[in-house]
Amino acid sequence: MAEEVKLFGTWASVFSRRIEVALKLKGVQFEYIEENLSNKSPALLKYNPVHKKIPVLVHNGKPVAESLVILEYIDETWKHNPILPTDPYEKAMARFWAKYIDDKLWPAAREVAVSKGEEQKGVIEEIQKQLKTLESELKEKKFFGGQSLGFVDIAANIIVWLVVAQEALGMEILTEEKFPVLHGWYQRLVDDAVFKECMPPREQHLSFVKVRFGSSTPSK
Amino acid sequence: MAEEVKLFGTWASVFSRRIEVALKLKGVQFEYIEENLSNKSPALLKYNPVHKKIPVLVHNGKPVAESLVILEYIDETWKHNPILPTDPYEKAMARFWAKYIDDKLWPAAREVAVSKGEEQKGVIEEIQKQLKTLESELKEKKFFGGQSLGFVDIAANIIVWLVVAQEALGMEILTEEKFPVLHGWYQRLVDDAVFKECMPPREQHLSFVKVRFGSSTPSK
Repeated sequence: MAEEVKLFGTWASVFSRRIEVALKLKGVQFEYIEENLSNKSPALLKYNPVHKKIPVLVHNGKPVAESLVILEYIDETWKHNPILPTDPYEKAMARFWAKYIDDKLWPAAREVAVSKGEEQKGVIEEIQKQLKTLESELKEKKFFGGQSLGFVDIAANIIVWLVVAQEALGMEILTEEKFPVLHGWYQRLVDDAVFKECMPPREQHLSFVKVRFGSSTPSK
Repeated sequence: MAEEVKLFGTWASVFSRRIEVALKLKGVQFEYIEENLSNKSPALLKYNPVHKKIPVLVHNGKPVAESLVILEYIDETWKHNPILPTDPYEKAMARFWAKYIDDKLWPAAREVAVSKGEEQKGVIEEIQKQLKTLESELKEKKFFGGQSLGFVDIAANIIVWLVVAQEALGMEILTEEKFPVLHGWYQRLVDDAVFKECMPPREQHLSFVKVRFGSSTPSK
């Protein structure tokens, strides 16, 4: 059966990039629709009436929203090249860490980009504590998912955003010296052929973050 | 093999009650350990070092935290009497709604209990919008899970907490008149034999909410 797979996203969003990575890891063909978040399309509003947010995956006309929910849907629908472990306990651990990243790391990462001075220092300390926690989970593994990248690695693309933000905004958060284990993981992640394909163009991303969050902009 | 299943919880928490419901629906024997949140046990801190929160399920010595993660773990470990659908799309929808309840309804429900006057009116309106959204998802179904209670019904036990809070604090949020569909669901839920067994004793719960959130208490 010919399948119709559409992804509504926006290029700078870590959340829509997650879905691209998963679809490409599975080799699923899809149509990507770039949304303008200040003028959302009627299709996006129709497919995600509850949150009116990207990403939305539409599979044969049926929409799924929320990036981690979409990742699980993709993994259960196209079963080859699994991104989640099959063992229930390992699967629970993967879900736990992905939720940790979304509930703890992402709000702090957003906060650090809009804060200044002492406040920013406090947020950086908070983020570094979280990164240490993630590092102690990673230990000597190549990826959170083991030998190849999986659910938590994909969710942890927020760390790639954080590294872009640290460069764009002149902060020092994740350095090789402070986080040797996580830094090694980061290098393997951005060097991964599929992941690399799904990263925003670096210069464009840097200047986007500078304009959006840099000190020259009056808006928070 | 003799299994060891322990649940660390606290009686008034909707999140630990969720786990009790799931374990009882499955007929899994477990030991319940009541935690004192103002003096957490070394065991809880050992089993959930990241969040230091209840509920934690410990299965043969291995801990799982975060209530929705625990529910999925239970459903995958003891496969009879499933609480999640098997179809990937229906499963994604269940996850979407459970996440909606935790991300949107729970923060608003907490907020309504600590707010006053005009601010409280605003939060009540917000909650009622969310309840309408849930009602439009429920439609004519007996439970969110279909003919019997499932993942979303268990997650939606927050609504039962909300009904207790509305009575304890003299608010009008979920009435039969305003929410006929959801009110019918609420009645079926609290009449369900397993669910009923896992509800906090009503009078104790009412006075707990009054003391914790009532206007006579100075703390927020």
